[in-house]
Amino acid sequence: MLSRPDRLLPALDLARRVEAGELTPEGLVDLCAAAISAREDDVGAFTYLAIEKARAFARTDAARLRALPLRGLPVGLKDIYDTHDMPTEYGSAAYRGHQPASDASTVTMLRRAGGNILGKTVTTEFAHQQTGKTRNPHNLAHTPGGSSSGSAAAVAAGMVPIATGSQTAGSVIRPAAYCGVAGFKPSYKLIPTIGVKCYAWSLDTVGFYGAGVADVAFATAAMSGRDLRVDRAAPTAPRVALMHTHIWADASPDMQNAVDTAARDLEAAGASVTEVALPPLLQDAWRAHKVIILYEAGLSYAFEYDNKRDLLGPKTVAMLDEAKTVGVDAYDDARRIAKRARLALAHLMADFDVILTPSAPGAAPHGIGATGVANFNWLWTLMGTPCVNVPGLSDGAGMPLGVQIVGRFGRDRAALEAALFTERALASRT
Amino acid sequence: MLSRPDRLLPALDLARRVEAGELTPEGLVDLCAAAISAREDDVGAFTYLAIEKARAFARTDAARLRALPLRGLPVGLKDIYDTHDMPTEYGSAAYRGHQPASDASTVTMLRRAGGNILGKTVTTEFAHQQTGKTRNPHNLAHTPGGSSSGSAAAVAAGMVPIATGSQTAGSVIRPAAYCGVAGFKPSYKLIPTIGVKCYAWSLDTVGFYGAGVADVAFATAAMSGRDLRVDRAAPTAPRVALMHTHIWADASPDMQNAVDTAARDLEAAGASVTEVALPPLLQDAWRAHKVIILYEAGLSYAFEYDNKRDLLGPKTVAMLDEAKTVGVDAYDDARRIAKRARLALAHLMADFDVILTPSAPGAAPHGIGATGVANFNWLWTLMGTPCVNVPGLSDGAGMPLGVQIVGRFGRDRAALEAALFTERALASRT
Repeated sequence: MLSRPDRLLPALDLARRVEAGELTPEGLVDLCAAAISAREDDVGAFTYLAIEKARAFARTDAARLRALPLRGLPVGLKDIYDTHDMPTEYGSAAYRGHQPASDASTVTMLRRAGGNILGKTVTTEFAHQQTGKTRNPHNLAHTPGGSSSGSAAAVAAGMVPIATGSQTAGSVIRPAAYCGVAGFKPSYKLIPTIGVKCYAWSLDTVGFYGAGVADVAFATAAMSGRDLRVDRAAPTAPRVALMHTHIWADASPDMQNAVDTAARDLEAAGASVTEVALPPLLQDAWRAHKVIILYEAGLSYAFEYDNKRDLLGPKTVAMLDEAKTVGVDAYDDARRIAKRARLALAHLMADFDVILTPSAPGAAPHGIGATGVANFNWLWTLMGTPCVNVPGLSDGAGMPLGVQIVGRFGRDRAALEAALFTERALASRT
Repeated sequence: MLSRPDRLLPALDLARRVEAGELTPEGLVDLCAAAISAREDDVGAFTYLAIEKARAFARTDAARLRALPLRGLPVGLKDIYDTHDMPTEYGSAAYRGHQPASDASTVTMLRRAGGNILGKTVTTEFAHQQTGKTRNPHNLAHTPGGSSSGSAAAVAAGMVPIATGSQTAGSVIRPAAYCGVAGFKPSYKLIPTIGVKCYAWSLDTVGFYGAGVADVAFATAAMSGRDLRVDRAAPTAPRVALMHTHIWADASPDMQNAVDTAARDLEAAGASVTEVALPPLLQDAWRAHKVIILYEAGLSYAFEYDNKRDLLGPKTVAMLDEAKTVGVDAYDDARRIAKRARLALAHLMADFDVILTPSAPGAAPHGIGATGVANFNWLWTLMGTPCVNVPGLSDGAGMPLGVQIVGRFGRDRAALEAALFTERALASRT
């Protein structure tokens, strides 16, 4: 079941070629269509495809698209992003054939920036753990991770240059790591979640996948109008806090090796790297994530739990059953811990630009009935900090291993720049 | 056009009567139906009514409802709350006949607590300023305020004991003040906004209307499972910061007199009242509210602006036109000001339980084409603090004047208790 690595579609390079007149927006769709034709039957990244519509749009709007930042780049949307012109099923039989009346704000932002929506990608049910059909492009017997399974796999299989995800536990960073692509979770609330099915309102963050770090930075900058591009100058050497964290023993030997390799490569490239322990309060916050996600999911999905339970997958029902056990006092305690931990983290990071830590416990596990564990993501999602999966390493079987760069809250550009520095440091070694 | 004050439906008292077997859930619907029959043609509070359905539900589920906290109390929902079984038009021609697939989380919470949804109430378009048909029950020539126009008017006209609103600028507190009912805006994020049409994600807060302060506290406690009831013991005397604020000159003489009257009554009842000036940083935050609401509305309503502009009212279009002039840097500056101001306010409030300040610049203005000004609400919405409109005063023409109790962030029960103390202090004078 092991397959060769696919050729990725680098968003920045493709956009430049359209700008230079070497490629047309329609040509971009053709590139995607060819990869989809070759790989979609195996990978199963999409739940809905609109290739002909995207091609027609690229043709009729070519001149306008060419003048916009994204230059007509095709985009895959995780199927929890509402679209007024494509079904949006939230990965759930409870929403089979559901057609929203409007687009998510991010979808309009992508369209305004010149993105061309190619289709909807597979999500686990309600962005939790009930898996869909998607397989890991690097080895079809392995999970692509979740919940943004289809988006990470579609980018990894070279089917789209850009895809959207969302992270409430570890749903952007983990699939990026498992699929060997760049994934970016911006600071909490930097990008609106309006029209993205809510899982937990204190945690939900939209994210982006691309071939490399500069590509996700470019896509996020283009759609948000923010100064996030990192491709215009060489990244400066960051001050890195290496955090093994209190769950280092849960990381596979390969992952431990990958993180320590990245640390050495960063130092060799001129970065300062200091090993920093995770303070007890942040370990408390790590535990508090589960209380918050459960309590809020219990209310976010209250309608479906009360009215559509028979149509929900067993993992979704089990999660919502468990949510009933979390009371408001436990929830309020967890929120207070999170608030204190955010202040402590800001204090801890005063002398550092970023944290280096695992993106996941290891490479993508075998089997597609589970999406792996998000334990290396919970804390950072709760802290609201920008996170980037940096691809480039792999285990002995050729499966990708991602290392995670965690930035300071609101310093998204610095996080991306440090991630690019890391990506280049890893590339220069191999 | 002046009409007699309607008899309000007090939620707490009605719930007790159902609990005691003196009234049935169906009898509650009958009370509402009678008031609606008498007054709805004039007031125009509802955009959709489901009286027969509510009556049938009250009959078939009577035993179950009687055992739940809300005891079958009929509820009016502002028509930006999604309902799977009633149309939800967001006050906009762009959503005529729109039928959501699910209920807002708060709707499920109300149903779980034993609320009986009676219908959808008029909202201004997208909770901004394009008005609907609703008139002020105290004088049909005057606005009920907005954006939660129908909910405030429905409670004021005795058509429902409980109705929901939402506040992004001043849309819960101002209509409550204009209509002479209690209105409660909880702390930001205390109650989920999932399935409530988003206006500005940093500001949107759901709220509740009832006959008196104890009624809204009861309703919020029942639907949220939180310890917010204030009817079980006499409220203790609060430490009150009297804030005229820097826009005191914008308050009408009647309103100035109402606030100072409330201050004197509070002192007479045993509260401590200290006049406190609004610090310059909080005045900056007051100005920052407009930047934040415009920037976020520009993205929240991006789809409608790009795709349905011809169907939007001129005030909505003008607001979204203006939103385009707010860039990310201005927005980020405004958010930083808000963050600093929240800390400053917490510091300022260390020695006080609540703030006493106007709920609105005066009584409800003449005419129903505009909803009045929210300038006495912007700051507190941005600060995320709990706010209560305390009814009980009126101007020389018999139009209600509301005073506002602003609590400390997260201290919602203390805010409600101080508001109840204020309500009783005002009542004991008259």
